Order: sequence, then C-alpha cells, then structure tokens
Amino acid sequence: MSADQRFQQQAAALGYSFDGQIKVGGNYASVVRDGELLYVSGQIPRVDDEIVVVGAAGTEVSLEKARLAAKVSTMRALALVGRVAGSLGNIVAVPRMTVFVRSAPSFTQQSEVADGASDLLAAVLGSIGVHTRTSVGVAQLPKGATVELDFIFKVKATGGA
Amino acid sequence: MSADQRFQQQAAALGYSFDGQIKVGGNYASVVRDGELLYVSGQIPRVDDEIVVVGAAGTEVSLEKARLAAKVSTMRALALVGRVAGSLGNIVAVPRMTVFVRSAPSFTQQSEVADGASDLLAAVLGSIGVHTRTSVGVAQLPKGATVELDFIFKVKATGGA
Amino acid sequence: MSADQRFQQQAAALGYSFDGQIKVGGNYASVVRDGELLYVSGQIPRVDDEIVVVGAAGTEVSLEKARLAAKVSTMRALALVGRVAGSLGNIVAVPRMTVFVRSAPSFTQQSEVADGASDLLAAVLGSIGVHTRTSVGVAQLPKGATVELDFIFKVKATGGA
Repeated sequence: MSADQRFQQQAAALGYSFDGQIKVGGNYASVVRDGELLYVSGQIPRVDDEIVVVGAAGTEVSLEKARLAAKVSTMRALALVGRVAGSLGNIVAVPRMTVFVRSAPSFTQQSEVADGASDLLAAVLGSIGVHTRTSVGVAQLPKGATVELDFIFKVKATGGA
Repeated sequence: MSADQRFQQQAAALGYSFDGQIKVGGNYASVVRDGELLYVSGQIPRVDDEIVVVGAAGTEVSLEKARLAAKVSTMRALALVGRVAGSLGNIVAVPRMTVFVRSAPSFTQQSEVADGASDLLAAVLGSIGVHTRTSVGVAQLPKGATVELDFIFKVKATGGA
Repeated sequence: MSADQRFQQQAAALGYSFDGQIKVGGNYASVVRDGELLYVSGQIPRVDDEIVVVGAAGTEVSLEKARLAAKVSTMRALALVGRVAGSLGNIVAVPRMTVFVRSAPSFTQQSEVADGASDLLAAVLGSIGVHTRTSVGVAQLPKGATVELDFIFKVKATGGA
C-alpha cells in the first residue's frame, strides 16, 4: 500500500476528510519550500471550518482526546505536504516536529499527547516518518485549540528548488 | 523603492529607530549563518534599552498593542539581517517565523497578534516575505515582554558560507 | 584539551555521568541527521531514569537550580550528538537552540536560565558553540521538568548524508 493510500486509511479511521481546501487567513503560507525541505506552519486540529478539539488538556480535554487532536493536526500537515510534493511517497525524512499542548496547570503528559502524532507518522510513512520532536505545555493556543504542531519535512529533489 | 527604503519607511511609521546597536547579553549570537540560511535569535520588542511593550496580551495589553509589539520585534530581526546580509534586498525567502505571545489565560488571538509581523514582512519584503509561521500563547517571556519572535531567513549566496 | 575531554570535565563538575543509554519512549528519534545538520529532540534534565530538576522556576525552583537543569539538558544533547557524530570535535556550528522554561506566573528570567546552556556550550565547544537562541516561559513540561531544550547542530560532512 502506498503512503497516500495509508493516509486515506487513517482519514477513514479518524472519520474526517482532509480533501477540502486548507486556507490561511493572513500574509503567510501553509508551506514554504527551501530546497528539499518543506517548512509547514503550525497546524491546529481544524477540519474544514471546524476546530474539532478545543480546551485545555488535563481538565477540559482528556489525554485520549488531546492525542486525537494531535493526529488530526498531523493529518492536516500531511495533506498540505502531499499537495505541494505531489504525493506523500515523495517524503524522504521528517527532521523536526514541535508539539504545543494547551495544558492545565498540573497536566504533564505532553509526550503522551505527542505520541498520537508520532504514531500517525509511523502509520502513514513507516520508518521514513521517524522524526525528532519537542513537546511542551503552553498557556493558550489560537482559537482555544488543544494542540498546535509544526513540522519540517524533507522531500525528493525535483526539477527546481 | 528598495527593501531597505521600505524598512526605513516602516521605522518612521512606527516612530522608532532601529539604527542603534543590537547587543546580546550572553554566550550566544543574534544571528548565525548556515550556508544561505540566517537563523535569528528570539527578538522581544526592545528598542535600544527599552522594551516598548510589556505585559500579558488580553488583560494588561490590548490586541492592537500586542500587534505593535510583533511589528517592533520583526523590525529588530530585519535590522539584524540587513547588517549581516549587507542589504534587505539580499533576502530571497523567509522559511520560518515562530511567534510566542505572552497570553492571559483566556486570550486566544495569537494568530491576530502574529498578523502584525506577517503584515510587516509583506510591507518590507513583498512576496519574498511570505513565510510559514507558528503562533502560540505562553505563560511568560524574558523581562515580561508581550511577544518574542524568532526567524529563519534565506539570503543570496555570497563568497563564503 | 579536546571537546570530548571538556565534556567529561563538565560532567564531573556537575556530578553526573552521561555515559548511560539515552532511550526514547515512542515512535521518534533523539537525533535525525539531514545532511550536515543534526536535529536533536527536546531534552529534559534527565540522567538515566531520574529527572533531576522538577517544578516551576521562580517558586518551586530557584534560578540557580533552573540554570543547572539547562546545563544537564544540554549535556544530554551533547552526549547524543557525540554518539551520532563520533566525537564532539566533529561539531562545526550550533545554528539554533530553543529553551522552554517552566515558569511561575511572575518569573521573567528565562534568558538567565538559558545562560546555563549557553555557558556550557561555550565551555565545551569554545567559539564553535556560539548559537542563536530563543527562551520562553511555558505553563508545563513533560513529567513536570523545569526546562526542555532542543537544538540544531552542524557537523562535518562525512561519507554519507
């Protein structure tokens, strides 16, 4: 099965479609390419116009729900990369992922939330999806989202840069 | 008009001069060059020795004031890059900007604060300033500043690396 | 004295050994190499199985203790890089360090905490250790750790990439 097929499989398992337009609301871009690196802007768990997990992990939001939020944000990032790179099969490495978790004061399971994203990358990309990561607990996130994740992907060199 | 001229125009509009020395107080550097990439250290809205916007966004500091803080921090970063690269006209891309907003517990407009920085990059650099960004709300920042922003710029290759 | 020897000297001064295994507990890696860059995952001040500094800086943890935590986290990162690169003598630059400090609401000395890490890099790597840095105060960190630091190191090109 190809990475693109495994992506659709994960989308079905989550019960969301990531085929819609992913737009940004300001003077910036979702993805900027620098040579073989694709920098991806911070992704919150938004599907179409709805943010599907909102609130602080540990009180308003359970670990399981926060982990789901990390998966959805990662799916958004993969959807963006697939469009820019033509196919998820063109990803060759994932040097960096940063996971910001909106956290109640006593919530210390940021790594366990990030595992949702790491497991999803493994499910879609296999060993190519092995990445470095940093997981921290923050006071707030845009629109009250539970998580925000950004990424650097490496893709196959194509004609231009 | 050149990027350097547009920078001076923005400085005049903000009412601050960024021509003074920008020093760091420890064993690190404001800018480190890696090939064509310039990594810029986290910038708070400091002009000379004064931090011009201090406090938590949403309670002590309005959205408009926080947005100004983001502009001033971005101007500092541009001033640094202009010195290292010779001219802002040597910037060819802005792969990454990260925006940390010191946020009151219920403040969720981190993206709107970051727009101040994104709009400023567009005003000075035009389409070359289109960047990826991550905006998060944090508990505190150095010296109580309202925002801190870091960047990766890409500049024209010159003689050395 | 070599960088590896200075590393052992610092370990002795801190009173900790960093020779043990450094394992990760999920689908990610401590270090991912991209060409000459080594991305290092967020490091908390863990030595073997113990997190040696836990709690919020400014109330539960003093500045001095938080600074120690930053040193220990940096030693972990250096230990990882030394294993991947063969020797710390193969480091040629440190483009980026990000320092997340778990902070009490009124604690604003994140830069002073980060100085612990910057000073340690200078002690082990000399002028090669000069880096850019971003220091922010966050609400929580994994396992309640006082600091978390991530890095991008640049190493000598070797046979493969």
